[in-house]
Amino acid sequence: MPTVAAYTATSPTAPLTPGTVERREVGPKDVLIDIAYAGVCHSDIHTVRGDWGEVPYPLTVGHEIAGVVARVGEEVTAHKVGDRVGVGCMVDSCRECANCLAGAEQYCLRGFTDTYNGTDRDGTTTQGGYSTGIVVDEHFVLRIPDTIPFEKAAPLLCAGITTYSPLRNWNAGPGTKVAVVGLGGLGHMAVKIAHALGAEVTVLSQSLKKREDGLRFGADHYHATADPATFEQLAGAFDLIVNTVSAPIDLDAYLNLLALDGTIVSVGAPPEPVSVILFTLFENRRSFAGSKIGGIAQTQEMLDFCAEHGIAPEVEVIAADAVNDAWERVLASDVRYRFVIDTSTLGGS
Amino acid sequence: MPTVAAYTATSPTAPLTPGTVERREVGPKDVLIDIAYAGVCHSDIHTVRGDWGEVPYPLTVGHEIAGVVARVGEEVTAHKVGDRVGVGCMVDSCRECANCLAGAEQYCLRGFTDTYNGTDRDGTTTQGGYSTGIVVDEHFVLRIPDTIPFEKAAPLLCAGITTYSPLRNWNAGPGTKVAVVGLGGLGHMAVKIAHALGAEVTVLSQSLKKREDGLRFGADHYHATADPATFEQLAGAFDLIVNTVSAPIDLDAYLNLLALDGTIVSVGAPPEPVSVILFTLFENRRSFAGSKIGGIAQTQEMLDFCAEHGIAPEVEVIAADAVNDAWERVLASDVRYRFVIDTSTLGGS
Repeated sequence: MPTVAAYTATSPTAPLTPGTVERREVGPKDVLIDIAYAGVCHSDIHTVRGDWGEVPYPLTVGHEIAGVVARVGEEVTAHKVGDRVGVGCMVDSCRECANCLAGAEQYCLRGFTDTYNGTDRDGTTTQGGYSTGIVVDEHFVLRIPDTIPFEKAAPLLCAGITTYSPLRNWNAGPGTKVAVVGLGGLGHMAVKIAHALGAEVTVLSQSLKKREDGLRFGADHYHATADPATFEQLAGAFDLIVNTVSAPIDLDAYLNLLALDGTIVSVGAPPEPVSVILFTLFENRRSFAGSKIGGIAQTQEMLDFCAEHGIAPEVEVIAADAVNDAWERVLASDVRYRFVIDTSTLGGS
Repeated sequence: MPTVAAYTATSPTAPLTPGTVERREVGPKDVLIDIAYAGVCHSDIHTVRGDWGEVPYPLTVGHEIAGVVARVGEEVTAHKVGDRVGVGCMVDSCRECANCLAGAEQYCLRGFTDTYNGTDRDGTTTQGGYSTGIVVDEHFVLRIPDTIPFEKAAPLLCAGITTYSPLRNWNAGPGTKVAVVGLGGLGHMAVKIAHALGAEVTVLSQSLKKREDGLRFGADHYHATADPATFEQLAGAFDLIVNTVSAPIDLDAYLNLLALDGTIVSVGAPPEPVSVILFTLFENRRSFAGSKIGGIAQTQEMLDFCAEHGIAPEVEVIAADAVNDAWERVLASDVRYRFVIDTSTLGGS
């Protein structure tokens, strides 16, 4: 089995430390990827710290993976050695349920296999991208267009598709007014993509601190949600609101910003129940929806769209030994806008 | 001013008693309707009893009105004396906001004028259909097809359109699986309409008591929500759930019954906030929406659809002096499925 270098969690509280991960042998449909960069997602921290339930240690996280194909199984047709490729939040699904057949592997009725902390077909726990290599079934390997550098491609595989998918599914485009709540890793991609899709884009952020950034990313308007006047001024203004904030928000206040047949889609969520006043939903025939990453075909579409429109995340590349500090900065919202680990700093496999 | 006989509330608690209502003079665009039948809606009771806020007494309620045109203003073009017509929950709106222009008068951005307990243009409080006559702007007067008897037409103007509208807007039809929660006045119309639209229809009712009725109305399946097995068996089963229940329901449990891209639309609602776990919305990209009656054009479409498909509500015709007993039976859910007042029992105007 290929052994690869990794940066690994050994407990909910200890810093990540150098370690190794055993990858499975490359099967007939598998692709071995030499990882070049791995993005740092807030989910990585939630998972390791046990916020979403107990996890087995040691655990290597990371589901924003970009690199080069190093080896392929004999039945692989979609990728070849030397190809620039990526892996996102999924490494497998049943591929025969109605949702998988509809290209919505993220809603696989038997549950897709998470890139890390998932249960693989052989019963082992999947290990993620903070490592120098990974073996993945070719169906879950994406082609990275030549014009997107690896370190910029990595965050597209989670932050990019998570925002692209609702924007596309709810038809953001010319003539639609889109609000993006929160200007973090997800939010800044939502702004860039919604703008490229042709929508009129408004950022709703707690303060005006990142206003210049927001406008540079393509926002037409920028409002502080800490200012109550924002909610009066923008009542009924939007066709679509993409909520990227995981902390609880006052949903009724945001629902009130929707125009006729408008929808608020949450892609971030607190585990606690939220409260909604139905009478607010009744006005303007509003909808409230959830959306989770995106299917494999749509992820490829997103990568191609980003290449075509010259869109990429804002990244801060770090060495592996800076990841613990980076996590603290993610928790403090002190990142503009995505940390990406240069996995060459992990040492050889 | 025309004075008409009415059955009127004089306090939140006293029984309705015979009274009169002063109608305005017939203006250039007005239609005077001799009311033949008026349906009894749960909203009538909520309003009079002050459940939704204080109201001015005396108040005459009723927003399911069917009758004959008795007089028209000189500029009226849509209706003529002798026409069979109806009036629903709205008697006016601004008719110039974006929503009115989109045919969604029920979401008029300045607020539509309720058929009763609304504030009319002249500042008076509107008075509803438990009366022998009403004056309404022609735009808010619907044509009742000849094949629908008046007493069956009346409930279509609220219960009919309230369920037809979400079924149409969320594309119920051949190949879609629709669940109707609650088999009351609204629910039984939802079943009939969804069936006529070609959907596969399931009733979700507390018990199996009304099962025979539900199947007769066109339901393909009928399940008791008191049985926890229902929620296991039907997980992920529906494209659309129309919730007609105003009492609080366990939304997360119902959300879990939605298939990929499924929506639960509430047309009934408790005034209290409801709680939703966002992670349930995230699965299957589910939506949760509200819908309020329907626009005027869609209401006419609904009446024509019901005529074409031979659909009508199940009604129990009562004399005006039975309305207080009828209200008690509505509160006890002891009605199959809509009371309709024969307004000829109110005495002359």
